[in-house]
Amino acid sequence: MEILTAGQISLVYNAFSFGIATFAAATVFFWFGRSQVSHQYKTAMTIAGLVTFIALYHYWRIFESWGQAYQVVGGVVTATGDVFNRAYRYVDWLLTVPLLLIELILVMRLSQAETVSKSIKLGGAAALMIALGYPGEVSGGIDSTRLIWGALSMVPFLYIVFTLYTSLGSAIERQPVAVRGLIRLARNLTVVSWFFYPVVYFLPFVLALDGGTTIAAVEVGYTIADITAKAVFGLVIYAIAVRKSEIEGAKA
Amino acid sequence: MEILTAGQISLVYNAFSFGIATFAAATVFFWFGRSQVSHQYKTAMTIAGLVTFIALYHYWRIFESWGQAYQVVGGVVTATGDVFNRAYRYVDWLLTVPLLLIELILVMRLSQAETVSKSIKLGGAAALMIALGYPGEVSGGIDSTRLIWGALSMVPFLYIVFTLYTSLGSAIERQPVAVRGLIRLARNLTVVSWFFYPVVYFLPFVLALDGGTTIAAVEVGYTIADITAKAVFGLVIYAIAVRKSEIEGAKA
Repeated sequence: MEILTAGQISLVYNAFSFGIATFAAATVFFWFGRSQVSHQYKTAMTIAGLVTFIALYHYWRIFESWGQAYQVVGGVVTATGDVFNRAYRYVDWLLTVPLLLIELILVMRLSQAETVSKSIKLGGAAALMIALGYPGEVSGGIDSTRLIWGALSMVPFLYIVFTLYTSLGSAIERQPVAVRGLIRLARNLTVVSWFFYPVVYFLPFVLALDGGTTIAAVEVGYTIADITAKAVFGLVIYAIAVRKSEIEGAKA
Repeated sequence: MEILTAGQISLVYNAFSFGIATFAAATVFFWFGRSQVSHQYKTAMTIAGLVTFIALYHYWRIFESWGQAYQVVGGVVTATGDVFNRAYRYVDWLLTVPLLLIELILVMRLSQAETVSKSIKLGGAAALMIALGYPGEVSGGIDSTRLIWGALSMVPFLYIVFTLYTSLGSAIERQPVAVRGLIRLARNLTVVSWFFYPVVYFLPFVLALDGGTTIAAVEVGYTIADITAKAVFGLVIYAIAVRKSEIEGAKA
C-alpha cells in the first residue's frame, strides 16, 4: 500500500466529492430536461440521467472506499490495510459506457432497425471492451497479464472509434444541418475523453506508477475524464434534443 | 465459515454492487417509461420497476451482509463470525417472482377474467415454489431435508413452465404479429434464467460446494440470473408495451 501525502489524499477526496456533486446535479438536470424535449427524445434524456446517476452511485462508493483505505490524523497518514477498490470504476463503465453510445444513437433518431442494430453492435463492443480490461486491472501486477488483457480490450475500443467515424459518421452527415455540428461534437467528445482511459491503463509500463503523486494524478484524471464523457457529453445531447425538438415542432 | 481469497471476496462485492447499480437504473427507467406507453400498459411498467426496486433493496442488504461476514485487511481474509445471510434472496424472490409473471400477463392485455385467473394461478404457484424451497435452503445441511423441500418446490416450478408453454403459450399466439416474437422472447427468457436457480439448489448433492471458488461462482451466477430475469426481462416488457401502444394508437 503506497503512502500518499496528506495533501494528495485530500486532493483526491475533493475530486471524488466534486464528482458526486456534479453527477447528482447533472442527473436532476437531465431528468427535468425530459419535459422540455419532444416525445422522440425523452428516452435519450432518461439515459443521459441514468449514466450520471450510475456514476453518482459509484463515486459515492469510491469516496467511501478511499476513506477506508487511508487515515489522516494530525497530518500523519496511515494506510489502514483496507484496499482502495479500484474495480468500482470498471463496474461503473460496464454499465455507463454502452449507455453513452446508445444515448448518442437515440438522439440521432435513426430508423428503428438501424437504432437496434447499432445499439447492439456498439453497446456490445463497449461492454466487451470493459470486461476485457477488468482482469488486467485487478491482477494488480505490471506484467504480461495486464498487457495481454489491455491489448485485447483495445480491439473493441478501436472498432468503436472506427464505427463512430465510418458508418455512424455517414449517418451524422444525414442529420439536419442545424444540429450536425453538435452531433459531431458529441462524437468527438466521446473519442477524445475515452482516449484518456487506455493511456492511464498502459502508463505503468512506461512510467513508475507507484508514487503517491501518480496515484493522485490518476484518480483526479479519471474524475475529469468521467465528468467530460458523462456530464458534459450529456449536456451536448440535451442541446441536440432541444434543437431537434424545435426544428421538428416547427415543421409539424 | 469457508474462507475465500481476497480476490474472490472482492469479485462478489463488485458483482453485488453491479446488481445495486443495475437495479437502481432499471427502476428509474421503467418508471419513467410509464409516460411513454399507453394507459393500458402503465401497470405493467409500474410492476417492472417494482420488481427491480425490491431487488435493489435486497442487493443492498446482501452487499452489507457480505461486508459483515468477511474482513480483508492487508490482503489477509478473516471470517468475522457473522453469517452471510443467504435468506435475503428468498425474501426477494417471494415478492418478485410472482410479480414477474404478473408483469408478463399484464403486457399481454388479456380479458379481465383471464388476467385475474392467470395471475392468481401463476403468481400463487410462484410464491408456493419459493416458500417450499426456503426450509431446505436454511436447514444448511446437504441432506434429505434439502432434498425433500427442493423436490416439493419443483412441483409448482414445473407447473409454471408447463403453463407458460400450453395455456399461456396459446394466448401468446393470439397476440399481434408485431409483438409475438418479443412476447415469446420474454417467456423464454423467464424459463431459461429460472433454470439456473434449481441447478444451484441441487448442485451440492453432486459437487462439493464448500470451496471458496464455488461460493463465489454461486453468488456471481445468482446475480447474473437475477439481472437477466428482472432487468433484461423488464426491458423486453417495455419494448412490448411501447410497440403495442404504437399499434393500438395507430388503429384508434
